[in-house]
Amino acid sequence: MTCADRPLPPAWGSWARRKKEDDMKTDTLRYRLLDAQLSLAREKERSVILLLTGHAVTHKGQVVNRLNHWLENRHTEVHALGPSSEEQSRPYWWRYWRRIPDRGRIGIFIHGWYGDALFARAERRLSAGAFHDRLEQIRHFEAELAAEGVVLLKLWNDIGRREQRHHLVELQQDPDRSWQAGPTEWQRHGQHAIIEAIGKTLRDDTEAPHAPWQRLSFREPGEQLSRVGRALLDVMEAPPDPPATTLAALPDELPGVPSLRRADAAVEERLDKAAYREDLARGQARLARNAREIARRRIPVVIAFEGHDAAGKGGSIHRVTAALDARQYRVHRIGAPSDEELALPWGWRFWRRLPVDGRIAIFDRSWYGRVLVERVEKLASKAEWQRAYGEIRHFEQQLLEHGGVLIKVFLAIEKDEQLRRFEARADTPHKRHKLTDEDWRNRERWDDYQRAIDEMFARTHAPGAEWSLVACDDKRRARLAVLEHVNERLEARLASAV
Amino acid sequence: MTCADRPLPPAWGSWARRKKEDDMKTDTLRYRLLDAQLSLAREKERSVILLLTGHAVTHKGQVVNRLNHWLENRHTEVHALGPSSEEQSRPYWWRYWRRIPDRGRIGIFIHGWYGDALFARAERRLSAGAFHDRLEQIRHFEAELAAEGVVLLKLWNDIGRREQRHHLVELQQDPDRSWQAGPTEWQRHGQHAIIEAIGKTLRDDTEAPHAPWQRLSFREPGEQLSRVGRALLDVMEAPPDPPATTLAALPDELPGVPSLRRADAAVEERLDKAAYREDLARGQARLARNAREIARRRIPVVIAFEGHDAAGKGGSIHRVTAALDARQYRVHRIGAPSDEELALPWGWRFWRRLPVDGRIAIFDRSWYGRVLVERVEKLASKAEWQRAYGEIRHFEQQLLEHGGVLIKVFLAIEKDEQLRRFEARADTPHKRHKLTDEDWRNRERWDDYQRAIDEMFARTHAPGAEWSLVACDDKRRARLAVLEHVNERLEARLASAV
Repeated sequence: MTCADRPLPPAWGSWARRKKEDDMKTDTLRYRLLDAQLSLAREKERSVILLLTGHAVTHKGQVVNRLNHWLENRHTEVHALGPSSEEQSRPYWWRYWRRIPDRGRIGIFIHGWYGDALFARAERRLSAGAFHDRLEQIRHFEAELAAEGVVLLKLWNDIGRREQRHHLVELQQDPDRSWQAGPTEWQRHGQHAIIEAIGKTLRDDTEAPHAPWQRLSFREPGEQLSRVGRALLDVMEAPPDPPATTLAALPDELPGVPSLRRADAAVEERLDKAAYREDLARGQARLARNAREIARRRIPVVIAFEGHDAAGKGGSIHRVTAALDARQYRVHRIGAPSDEELALPWGWRFWRRLPVDGRIAIFDRSWYGRVLVERVEKLASKAEWQRAYGEIRHFEQQLLEHGGVLIKVFLAIEKDEQLRRFEARADTPHKRHKLTDEDWRNRERWDDYQRAIDEMFARTHAPGAEWSLVACDDKRRARLAVLEHVNERLEARLASAV
Repeated sequence: MTCADRPLPPAWGSWARRKKEDDMKTDTLRYRLLDAQLSLAREKERSVILLLTGHAVTHKGQVVNRLNHWLENRHTEVHALGPSSEEQSRPYWWRYWRRIPDRGRIGIFIHGWYGDALFARAERRLSAGAFHDRLEQIRHFEAELAAEGVVLLKLWNDIGRREQRHHLVELQQDPDRSWQAGPTEWQRHGQHAIIEAIGKTLRDDTEAPHAPWQRLSFREPGEQLSRVGRALLDVMEAPPDPPATTLAALPDELPGVPSLRRADAAVEERLDKAAYREDLARGQARLARNAREIARRRIPVVIAFEGHDAAGKGGSIHRVTAALDARQYRVHRIGAPSDEELALPWGWRFWRRLPVDGRIAIFDRSWYGRVLVERVEKLASKAEWQRAYGEIRHFEQQLLEHGGVLIKVFLAIEKDEQLRRFEARADTPHKRHKLTDEDWRNRERWDDYQRAIDEMFARTHAPGAEWSLVACDDKRRARLAVLEHVNERLEARLASAV
């Protein structure tokens, strides 16, 4: 079939020509792929990410167009754009977390996170060290996705330097396709050897059973399509095993790391009201000034509050927010996930709530629920909560690398004091809503929680992500301690040059 | 209580001073508000929007800070920022739709949509006509929110010109607050009379029982807070009735509007395969060129497909997308809403899917479900589907005003042809997944659907938002007709200068 008077659009032209040659073979592949996709969409347990990167002018766009035409495009999405300003004012990986396909869907990325690393390194916008760090982030990111049921397939588009030049000249001479050979393509042609070398490091360092690379040599688009289709079908029909979680043994002594087991019982006298009010006023005035400076310098701040039930999280948060401009902060109460959150890997619930630069996100309970309540109440599997430590470190590290401040506070009370507070709550009309059956249930597992909390401290106390353990048996002292800690951390960040 | 050596932060200082004077009165108000908020959060049926706008330096920020301190801030959000680039590249109202609080939550807006209109008009960035249109949009927007259970309260902050000047000078002389009297505040002081006049028009034109205005005269912040608190409590304890839906009677004859009742049965001979392929190639090549131009000129495009079951929506969409670059479009299949969508007014499901400038969003079923399946199957109440016509017109109008293209296609088949196709689907292995029990159920209500479809045409066929009714008994002719229609609409838009 030809159309004499007009050129065929690249998206389907040669497909139609090829159809006569090996109709049967491609049709079979196509239907098997469609079938695999429909199972995926029906079962909604996994999602698929197909990523294409590599050299320029290797038919990536064409192959994606045709593949998309093969698939049921109601369950597919293609991502190939640069970051928006909303994305640039958040930690780097936010832009990819928000684009991860829901369970049941296929996401196709052209270049994606590999393109960022590859071209930034080729153009020396990324130092060797920063490139190395980025590859480590990629390994973490992909392992996390794989563990959460995302099937990954990464394709590297190869082309020889001479062949690339030949193809570029050919494109340039065709008025209908000359826009495909622009300055960027020529620049990347000039960097062929560099891209080749960086590409090798990139593939070697991020190869994993759960996120395999395949190289695609330069062929006619129809042939490339078949190879991509087969590779995709293979991983969809037999998804690789997710990465195993290995949890290092903890040493007995961890200097500097908080611990409930080793904490001294509070013996100080209760603070009297007048002294409390004066110190509170001072601390809040100081916080108001710090927060204005944080806004001016566009530093994002995340404050995570965890603690025993009835330790006084709400009250402490209230004393912090009282000093803040309501336009600058938001309190996120972390409860059960929504169904949109359940359709995505676990981490998305927290990534989506990261503040934009200059704002403060306060978490009333946080991502640590995974290794506390979800662990103790067996809402997460052992593998899930065990790998969460690493995922959490990765998540927190991203905020720090973006220049943010991370403040983690654990509010602790003694078991007897908790009982007194529960009973007091039950007796006070406007506090009764704070006490639920769950609180009483959690209390029954007090010792399990204490162990989980101490392990959390030991595994996630890190530079820039230190835990502050605040004894709350005296509420007034606790609130002042929280304010003092928040102020100190903000001031430490503000004292740094960047 | 005073703190001699440092100034008190504005957020809580005078509150603490006032506390001694009328502790009891404010405490009662505060607890009643908190109580109303907790009921709101528990019942999750309504949300509340409190909007403050008006003259500059009238303590808006302080009042919001303190109110936020009174409320349970886990269920509150404050919005006061200008639009991001993601927002600017979508129709105007997108930025507010995405900020509507979930059911159970309170959203506080400083200026919000009124500030945009007020200051743009004061600075003559908005013509008198455009200002008038904006006020009409505001009325639609607020009526839509109110009908969906959003309780609205709008406060206008008054201040006399002399008093404003006095207050500005006072602020300027206080080193801790001088930042509150910047160039913007002085500029707005200079425009006091203009703001006063525009404000009056704005309030008069947008006053409604479901979205009432209250004026706040300039007082000491603590007193303003009490007045705001009481006003908020009033609307929360006794929410106004939602606006009534009035549906105009339809004239018998609507020239130019499609109608199934008046449509001629297709009698044309079926198109042969060779001719079809040639025309398809031509149409797709043309679409590929048009789409590239659409991308270059950053025009957003929305294509909505509706139709009888088995009319061939999927196949028609496929013939359109085959000509497009996969990076440019996304197909949205509209099924049951997610729980995050259910927590927000109905329209949000569609607003959130509007494409960014230069991209194409294709809807496989659309917002018209409200007046088709939801109406016929009684999934929406009569009031809901009746007011949907107006909401839909408003929604579509926003896309057009933003410079977008809206293409609405209805694919129709005869009742007998549908039966033949259902039976054929049941017999073909790779098509069987397309046929569900629901299809058979819908078929039983054929006549109800026909009536609903014709009413939809009559009520939503509008300039720039015309319906195209495509007879699909011959699939090939139908696909070509869809392509032709899409091309024509894109070319008409491309031919316009803007």
